[in-house]
Amino acid sequence: MTPAHEQAVLPAPHTSDVPALLERGRTLATPVLREVVDRLAPPMNTVAAYHFGWIDAMGRPTEGDSGKAVRPALALLSAEAAGGPCEAGIPGAVAVELVHNFSLLHDDLMDGDEQRRHRDTVWKVHGPAQAILVGDALFALATEVLLEVGTADAGRATRRLTTATRKLIDGQAQDISFEHRERVTVAECLEMEGNKTGALLACASSIGAVLGGADDATADALEAYGYHLGLAFQAVDDLLGIWGEPAVTGKQTWSDLRQRKKSLPVVAALAAKGPAAERLGELLAADAKNPEIDDFSEEEFATRAALIEEAGGRAWTTEEARRQHATALDALNGVVMPEEIKQCLFALADFVVVRER
Amino acid sequence: MTPAHEQAVLPAPHTSDVPALLERGRTLATPVLREVVDRLAPPMNTVAAYHFGWIDAMGRPTEGDSGKAVRPALALLSAEAAGGPCEAGIPGAVAVELVHNFSLLHDDLMDGDEQRRHRDTVWKVHGPAQAILVGDALFALATEVLLEVGTADAGRATRRLTTATRKLIDGQAQDISFEHRERVTVAECLEMEGNKTGALLACASSIGAVLGGADDATADALEAYGYHLGLAFQAVDDLLGIWGEPAVTGKQTWSDLRQRKKSLPVVAALAAKGPAAERLGELLAADAKNPEIDDFSEEEFATRAALIEEAGGRAWTTEEARRQHATALDALNGVVMPEEIKQCLFALADFVVVRER
Repeated sequence: MTPAHEQAVLPAPHTSDVPALLERGRTLATPVLREVVDRLAPPMNTVAAYHFGWIDAMGRPTEGDSGKAVRPALALLSAEAAGGPCEAGIPGAVAVELVHNFSLLHDDLMDGDEQRRHRDTVWKVHGPAQAILVGDALFALATEVLLEVGTADAGRATRRLTTATRKLIDGQAQDISFEHRERVTVAECLEMEGNKTGALLACASSIGAVLGGADDATADALEAYGYHLGLAFQAVDDLLGIWGEPAVTGKQTWSDLRQRKKSLPVVAALAAKGPAAERLGELLAADAKNPEIDDFSEEEFATRAALIEEAGGRAWTTEEARRQHATALDALNGVVMPEEIKQCLFALADFVVVRER
Repeated sequence: MTPAHEQAVLPAPHTSDVPALLERGRTLATPVLREVVDRLAPPMNTVAAYHFGWIDAMGRPTEGDSGKAVRPALALLSAEAAGGPCEAGIPGAVAVELVHNFSLLHDDLMDGDEQRRHRDTVWKVHGPAQAILVGDALFALATEVLLEVGTADAGRATRRLTTATRKLIDGQAQDISFEHRERVTVAECLEMEGNKTGALLACASSIGAVLGGADDATADALEAYGYHLGLAFQAVDDLLGIWGEPAVTGKQTWSDLRQRKKSLPVVAALAAKGPAAERLGELLAADAKNPEIDDFSEEEFATRAALIEEAGGRAWTTEEARRQHATALDALNGVVMPEEIKQCLFALADFVVVRER
């Protein structure tokens, strides 16, 4: 089996130091994030700290897996893209992280997901009420931390973040509705993923610039970069959800198939013609009514994955990641910015498409 | 049994036309609220319309009970208090209603409440995921509708609304934590009620003024009026929750006792000395461990209510409503505003304290 990331390797990778960019985002945003989260009254501060991986379920400090931190890196770069210091992007980085984690808390509960980043989810450990409440609180903190900046540009940034959050909610609503439907078109799937993943990455990629006073055209171009980057990110995520290495992704084998997710490779395969697509359609239709999918053998999932691949769902999604990646880079052409910053944004886009987890 | 409102009647009621003030708030705010809610993608718009009582569970238009509409009335009056037209307060009225209903959607789910305003709650009809999702969406819409105003004052208003929302969430967190505790002090109960009810009424009472450009001192004084009005409102609510007329309140008899709520009359009674307080403490401690409270007879609840009254919990709460009412009126002394507007705010304060539902 070819790992997803090898198929998606790009012709000419950009060479900026991505680990350093991610580390800078983490280093500058996390202390502010922790300070802001600490404003929450007990027990919400503890629940939030657990969610962020700063403490374990017993309240002991941990060196947790805090995620890839692509969003903070983007927020800081976007401040620099608009000619400001990267620090101007910090409140934006923190606000976007707060909204992202608000949505994780609520989505995990709505979806009944029991694990995230190798740990039990908040509703599983602290109960549904805390997951709702702390999610709400993080959402409120996002607006709070942005408006505290106190400038007219902070008001603009908050408005854009609110728009992105509304799309995030729309995307989750679509995702839930797809579960109850037999067929979902590729266009519907892309729209859902654009809302659920694209909108917030778009906001992360522009919010630093907006805080730094960039005009709307610049902010819109940076948003377009982030939006298509988000779609590329999600296409890769959908590949990893089926063909990812469990040891690397932290998920089960065939994770999205187990959850019957109508992800891009699946809907693209089902939209194809030919015997593989037909056989896949029959199998998945039967699976939809089968409560015993949890007891399927590895082989049964492998059969479905092979059919998706045979029907062209894997190749199409890989190609789609490449297309969205290219569209993201194109969006930056219209923006005047320091060349080294552009190279960093290019390199981050490469990273998103070739990552293994 | 003396109805709660009779005990709480005020010495010299103010005479402005309260029904007309409430009706004006409803008439001006509801069309905008409906337009804003209609921005939600399906099925969230339908779920929200059900929650607001505009349609029934089958989607048919209804003439539902839309609540007392005190908050919109206050938001419009606060715009006039700052010397502007009442219309300047409309986005504020709508935003506050959105936040209030966001919190109802989430609280009903967290608390497991199956009925609100004589109807099944959203999570009961449309499921927990929709209650979470639509709540989130209403919260986002609140920020959206305010920031759309596009002025620096709208940014100030949003910041105040966000602060109030954070307190609302704190209050719900406290309320939940009280359920698991044997004893709650009167001070803790008042703090929780200040967060859960006072903060948003404070925001409603000042947001129109802020949108109209009032200075912070004026806004703070109006907030103080609303905050204490909220505490008066809640004290009356707590009285109605035990001694209210079911036909008027739309709740069961002894509603708060059935739910084992540690409301003001209860905590005040338990804080008293003497045989009634002691007997009450014993009964409630036993009730806390008794899963069969739903099967209690009317008489068993009546016994508890009588003990609360004998221990002074009812009189204390009635007096507390009067105190908070007086403090609310006092707060307006420092504000220069048209005399007829002040009379309207006085009259609304009276209404809140003497209402029967």
